[in-house]
Amino acid sequence: MDRRMLLGSSAALLPSALAAPAVAQSLPEIRWRLTSSFPKSLDLLSSAPESAARRIAALTDNRFQIRIFAAGEIVGGLQALDAVQTGTVEAAFTAPYYYVGKDPTFAFFSVLPFGLTQRQMTAWLRHGGGLDLANELFRGYNVIGFPTGDTGAQMGGWFRKEIRTPDDFKGLKFRVAGLAGEVFARMGAVPIQIAAGDIYPSLERGTLDAVEFVGPHDDERLGFARVAPYYYYPGFFEPSARLFTMVNLRAWEGLPEQYKQAFQVACLEQESELTSRYDHSNPQALRRLVAAGTQLRAYPRPVLEAAWRSANAVFEDVSQRNEGFRKVLESYRRYRDDEFTWFRVAENSYDNFAFTAAQVVR
Amino acid sequence: MDRRMLLGSSAALLPSALAAPAVAQSLPEIRWRLTSSFPKSLDLLSSAPESAARRIAALTDNRFQIRIFAAGEIVGGLQALDAVQTGTVEAAFTAPYYYVGKDPTFAFFSVLPFGLTQRQMTAWLRHGGGLDLANELFRGYNVIGFPTGDTGAQMGGWFRKEIRTPDDFKGLKFRVAGLAGEVFARMGAVPIQIAAGDIYPSLERGTLDAVEFVGPHDDERLGFARVAPYYYYPGFFEPSARLFTMVNLRAWEGLPEQYKQAFQVACLEQESELTSRYDHSNPQALRRLVAAGTQLRAYPRPVLEAAWRSANAVFEDVSQRNEGFRKVLESYRRYRDDEFTWFRVAENSYDNFAFTAAQVVR
Repeated sequence: MDRRMLLGSSAALLPSALAAPAVAQSLPEIRWRLTSSFPKSLDLLSSAPESAARRIAALTDNRFQIRIFAAGEIVGGLQALDAVQTGTVEAAFTAPYYYVGKDPTFAFFSVLPFGLTQRQMTAWLRHGGGLDLANELFRGYNVIGFPTGDTGAQMGGWFRKEIRTPDDFKGLKFRVAGLAGEVFARMGAVPIQIAAGDIYPSLERGTLDAVEFVGPHDDERLGFARVAPYYYYPGFFEPSARLFTMVNLRAWEGLPEQYKQAFQVACLEQESELTSRYDHSNPQALRRLVAAGTQLRAYPRPVLEAAWRSANAVFEDVSQRNEGFRKVLESYRRYRDDEFTWFRVAENSYDNFAFTAAQVVR
Repeated sequence: MDRRMLLGSSAALLPSALAAPAVAQSLPEIRWRLTSSFPKSLDLLSSAPESAARRIAALTDNRFQIRIFAAGEIVGGLQALDAVQTGTVEAAFTAPYYYVGKDPTFAFFSVLPFGLTQRQMTAWLRHGGGLDLANELFRGYNVIGFPTGDTGAQMGGWFRKEIRTPDDFKGLKFRVAGLAGEVFARMGAVPIQIAAGDIYPSLERGTLDAVEFVGPHDDERLGFARVAPYYYYPGFFEPSARLFTMVNLRAWEGLPEQYKQAFQVACLEQESELTSRYDHSNPQALRRLVAAGTQLRAYPRPVLEAAWRSANAVFEDVSQRNEGFRKVLESYRRYRDDEFTWFRVAENSYDNFAFTAAQVVR
């Protein structure tokens, strides 16, 4: 695949209104296609690449245009990386951990079970070497990656029956993404990874016993409450979840420097924007769900402890068979220890007091 | 002041290398001056406007250049708003709560004691109406504001003596910023607001008994550990602290649309970037401080409870005398209640388990 191929097909689509720029006469008109791993019904996840594309156009006098395609319009939600790698599209908006089947090391760049929270993950990616490690991995797939927002801590999933002990996971057919699948498998569950748009039918048909996707806002839209009443927290296997825009390396290298800057900053803008949309929308969605009968439950501590041990065992296993995973785990764990220690001091001690003070201080 | 005045003086400074753009021939060369409220020694706070200015230049083919001046180079750290209002400079990087003396309503847009955390604040500003309320206030000062990063939850200050009860604040000369001054005054302290660069000499001379600034990274640079051994947490009066870039309204209105976009997105980029720098740097700084003898202390719960009651009394008092404050407080409190309720679920329950799991789960 060469760059002309990537760009040629869409050049004919250029509307004439775009052909009269007031500025930037010498910069080329570029049209890209971006495939998303998510359906349009997930409005927050859809907003990230759409907002980024609008910003990129505005910063380039509309000369660099990116058209967004929802999951299934070009390829399926879990084929986004393949489509970028082969040059079917120039870019994808996706979650790296969808590709743990290719290499479990992808998990780090979405989220590791019991891993970094949203802010800690941002710090590791930018200042702890995380993004360099991501791109070392991605390069092998002909791709460069740009972090493009995060869901924040997720919920722990929807269940038809209550989870009282770690044994209640035994035999449970559980839709779950990323390396969490191995963690639950070790606890006796049958993990199944399905793209967002295909989860609800499987749950309704009974091919799944339980499901996690993100949190109240997205989960309400996907309709899980209609088939599973128990809604557990916290999503210990997804204490944050980073989305990435992945770009075909050759397409990237063909961009003028100013377009690269526009692309980068538009993704960086979404880093806080997408999270803020979740933080704004989740409180109301959770309230609606609970008002409609959803049973909110905290995972019992023995379940969290069993999962913690299971996660560590999985990390050791994978490290034994995958040198790249072992190397990233070392960086990630060291960073996590430092961040956890610091966040206990000012952030967590404030949260523990303030989040309940209105109810208990008189 | 008209726009030509603002732009005219610096046009002569244009270096010839900048006069040969490859693109954007019809866009004007613009030079702005930005005054910071902080000294250069505070490397993280200084990095935010510097990085934003570099990004803006890169996005405009170097035609829109912003030169950064540290506190004291043009005006003092607490005169930044005045300098923008009168057109002495086009922009400032500052903390809105430095101007509570003009109007206590400014406090909301940095941080309110027992207020929103960093992510919650971002959500309120962007999606809960906070930024519109900020700009309603700022417009009266001839200014438009752009959030440009946050410190995260701060520490609770450096003290010469231990704080064992709420009474230990009585008579204490305490450097503290924003509306927290009134909260501590009601507890018997003598609050004093001093710009960052002037705090250390006052502490050394004994004109202050105690001081808070930000957190381990900045506080280490300001040398507080050399004169006050007890370092308290959490900074309940600053559970986050938003920095703003403030721009003279007339200068803003004179920008071409593409420059406005570049300016906005460069500030938005810093929203996550500055916080991530703090989150990366604070763990190491705290470790160094403690290794060098700093005594880390949690505020006793009765102190937090007394401060909570004092803060609420201050909010009521100020609301009585200031209609604008009352209006913003209503929006802010409603939002805070929703956010606190939601963040207890997935985020806080995860943090409480995971931040200690490595020490306690076997």
